[in-house]
Amino acid sequence: MARGLNSVQLIGTLTQAPDMKYTAGGLAILELNLAGNDHVVGSDGQLRELAWYHRVSVFGKQAEYLVDQLAAGTPVFVEGRLNYRAWEDASGQKRSALGINAVRVDVLTHGPRKGEPTVLDARGQERLKNALNHVTIIGNLIRDAELRYTPSGDAVTRFVVAVNEQYRDRSGQDQESVHFVEVNVWRELAESCAELAKGDPVLVIGRLVKDNWTDKDGNRQYKDKLEGSRVEYLTRGPGGGGASTRPQPAQQAVGAQRGQQSRPSPALDIDEEFPPEEDLPF
Amino acid sequence: MARGLNSVQLIGTLTQAPDMKYTAGGLAILELNLAGNDHVVGSDGQLRELAWYHRVSVFGKQAEYLVDQLAAGTPVFVEGRLNYRAWEDASGQKRSALGINAVRVDVLTHGPRKGEPTVLDARGQERLKNALNHVTIIGNLIRDAELRYTPSGDAVTRFVVAVNEQYRDRSGQDQESVHFVEVNVWRELAESCAELAKGDPVLVIGRLVKDNWTDKDGNRQYKDKLEGSRVEYLTRGPGGGGASTRPQPAQQAVGAQRGQQSRPSPALDIDEEFPPEEDLPF
Repeated sequence: MARGLNSVQLIGTLTQAPDMKYTAGGLAILELNLAGNDHVVGSDGQLRELAWYHRVSVFGKQAEYLVDQLAAGTPVFVEGRLNYRAWEDASGQKRSALGINAVRVDVLTHGPRKGEPTVLDARGQERLKNALNHVTIIGNLIRDAELRYTPSGDAVTRFVVAVNEQYRDRSGQDQESVHFVEVNVWRELAESCAELAKGDPVLVIGRLVKDNWTDKDGNRQYKDKLEGSRVEYLTRGPGGGGASTRPQPAQQAVGAQRGQQSRPSPALDIDEEFPPEEDLPF
Repeated sequence: MARGLNSVQLIGTLTQAPDMKYTAGGLAILELNLAGNDHVVGSDGQLRELAWYHRVSVFGKQAEYLVDQLAAGTPVFVEGRLNYRAWEDASGQKRSALGINAVRVDVLTHGPRKGEPTVLDARGQERLKNALNHVTIIGNLIRDAELRYTPSGDAVTRFVVAVNEQYRDRSGQDQESVHFVEVNVWRELAESCAELAKGDPVLVIGRLVKDNWTDKDGNRQYKDKLEGSRVEYLTRGPGGGGASTRPQPAQQAVGAQRGQQSRPSPALDIDEEFPPEEDLPF
């Protein structure tokens, strides 16, 4: 399995004063609601400005010294990582969410951006017209990519990438976790990605977007996804995908092989943690 | 001094087979010469395609398992850091260079890029028309920014950013080094950055370019610089600039103060390590 790469860079403004919480163990957690506008090329080839709203979690000392510097409207730069969580809700339904954990947060001042145009959102809050939303991941597909067409005829390919993370916990133990990132790519890129198969290691660069739809029970659902603007195939095996030099955990056997190298799939089967097809917007 | 951020992402192709060396201590060093084309907006507002050539150093085990997978033309993704070196040449002249040290290298295969157009360079080597050259740094200006105008009337502002790096060396000691990165920004951004002053903490996002010029002795000189497409001012003091929680090393006093916080300058005086003005291309 490819060694994971998981990098998020955001520049945006806070939509409200940040919310500070403490865990039972006394760890500070600061929740930042960030917004910004950035630009994508639409199906007509024109640049379109799109708003994004994402929540960023900041932990520990950094949370404590940031809390007094931040207010609604404060512009910040965030470097962080996508963080996948899965749980069962009160009714026993499996749920999952993709969040952003900050590695660092820097408060921006009005220097070069002085006089830079902003837009006001529905709550009257300033949103940067030239925000930043840059995400880079490396991981493996957990199942074959799926190509579909929207009612207006745009090709869209969906796939889910398992991004490995290896870290040392507070007690000094080596831990491994996996972040499942749903990726959508559009039009020409969608068609060229349709052949991506389970286990394939990929590099995806894009922006984090929030899909929302109404599920079959009439409830509004939200899900953060990566809208890929660039997808690269990585080679497999030693060195390919920046292969870890650590011993691999036990992995499921995979029937089909592509290329010269064996193709282990992620150890977890998370298919059922994703919303059923009928809950998806198209 | 702002806690440094130093991130390089490149996608390009090797211009030749990589060159493997070993240090006296047995550490493998693999040198990759990479090339690619990317796009910038020119003074006429039009997208222009520009070639870049950069050298990337890969170390240790990663170098050893990569060497057999790489040949002239192999496409790779590199995540790395800018690395500043200074030395005296044989004639006692102070010299410096900015290189790229790889954190990881992934070999790309012809997946979605299948059929993607490439150009041939002067040596007949394929160069990706859609390469990637994405650099992000956070650091402090070592002297005031300088605004000039090219003979054709384009504004260009130059400044040098000291990027801190803290790391643990092989013997487990905490070390600190500083990377000096020369930044050029153009036109409107140049004019808005002209007021940046010594000590100011900034975030710069841009592409790494190689300036070349003939010095007063008639020798061809090359220097890697960051061409900034985005510059953000950071706030100072605790939390601002992602302030380190470590004790600060002894720092020079700085006369002028801006803002509410003290403004230490980098501990090193490297002014003389940069080429004299007459050696610069304009």
